[in-house]
Amino acid sequence: MNHHADQFRIKVAESGDIPTILAFIHKLAEYERLSDQVKITENQLFETLFGPRPFAEVILAFEAGACVGFACFFHNYSTFKGRPGLYLEDIFVDPEHRGKGYGKQMLRYLANLAVERNCARMEWAVLNWNQPAIDVYRAIGAKPMDEWTVFRLQGDKLLDLAGK
Amino acid sequence: MNHHADQFRIKVAESGDIPTILAFIHKLAEYERLSDQVKITENQLFETLFGPRPFAEVILAFEAGACVGFACFFHNYSTFKGRPGLYLEDIFVDPEHRGKGYGKQMLRYLANLAVERNCARMEWAVLNWNQPAIDVYRAIGAKPMDEWTVFRLQGDKLLDLAGK
Repeated sequence: MNHHADQFRIKVAESGDIPTILAFIHKLAEYERLSDQVKITENQLFETLFGPRPFAEVILAFEAGACVGFACFFHNYSTFKGRPGLYLEDIFVDPEHRGKGYGKQMLRYLANLAVERNCARMEWAVLNWNQPAIDVYRAIGAKPMDEWTVFRLQGDKLLDLAGK
Repeated sequence: MNHHADQFRIKVAESGDIPTILAFIHKLAEYERLSDQVKITENQLFETLFGPRPFAEVILAFEAGACVGFACFFHNYSTFKGRPGLYLEDIFVDPEHRGKGYGKQMLRYLANLAVERNCARMEWAVLNWNQPAIDVYRAIGAKPMDEWTVFRLQGDKLLDLAGK
C-alpha cells in the first residue's frame, strides 16, 4: 500500500464507459505494436459487451476520479476440471500511472471474482518480449504453459474450412 | 469423401449424452498423458454444460450409430476485433476411427458455426509434441501464435492473490 491507495478504486464498466474502453483498447494496441489489428467500433463494443448476449466483461481502474487502467475478461472452461476459468483478454495501466501497483490491484480484484464464481483458474496470454509483465506474472505465482501452442484460424482460411 | 461419409453425422450433445462425454474426456486425457488432472464428475458436467449458465458446448460425432468423437468449445472475445471467437477446448476422435477425416469434419462443422455466429476466428491449443495434430492444423491454414505464451494461475496461488 502507498499514499495513492485511498484514491484508488475499481468499478465494473457500464455502457456509458464505452468511449473510455475504446480509448484504452487503442492505447493497449499501441503498446503491443498491434495498432493495425484494431478494427473495433463503439457500436460493436456496445453489442458485444452490453447486448443481449455479452461475450466479455470490463473493469475500470480510477485514481482520484481519473480512469487509469482497464481489464477485459470472459469465462473459459476446463473439461478436466469441470469448472469455468477466468480468462483475462486484456489488462492495461496508463504508462504514467505505472509502478503504483494498480495492475496488481486489478489482478487481485479479478482473482477474487474468479474464486467467488468457482473458477478453477485464471489464464492470460503475454507477448514473449513483454518482460516487465512476465516478471509481475511470475511474482504472483502464475506459470507459463510452455508445452502448449495456440493455433489461430481466421479470414479466408476460416471461410475455406467452413466451405463458404 | 470416402465410403464412410454417408454413415457419418455430427450432433449437438444433450444432457442424456453426459456419460458419453465423460468417457471421451477421460480418453482424451489418457492420450494427452494428463489423466491425473481429470477431476470432473457427471454432476459437474450437467451443471456447467446444461445448467442455467452454460460455460461451453459439446458436439458428438457418430459413425453408423456409434459415437466416435467429441469436441467441446466456448466463445472467447477479441477487443481488437470487437467480435467473439470460437475457442476449441477439446477435440478427440477415437484412435480406431482415425484416418477417415472425422476430425476435419468436426473442425469444418465448427468453422461453419463460427462464421454463422459472426466470430472473427477459431483458436485452440495443442501440445507441442502432438505432431499429427499440428500437421492437420497447419494443413487447414491455422497459424501458431508463437509470439505469445499463456500464463496460468491456480490453486493456492490464485487464493493467495485473492487474499482468501
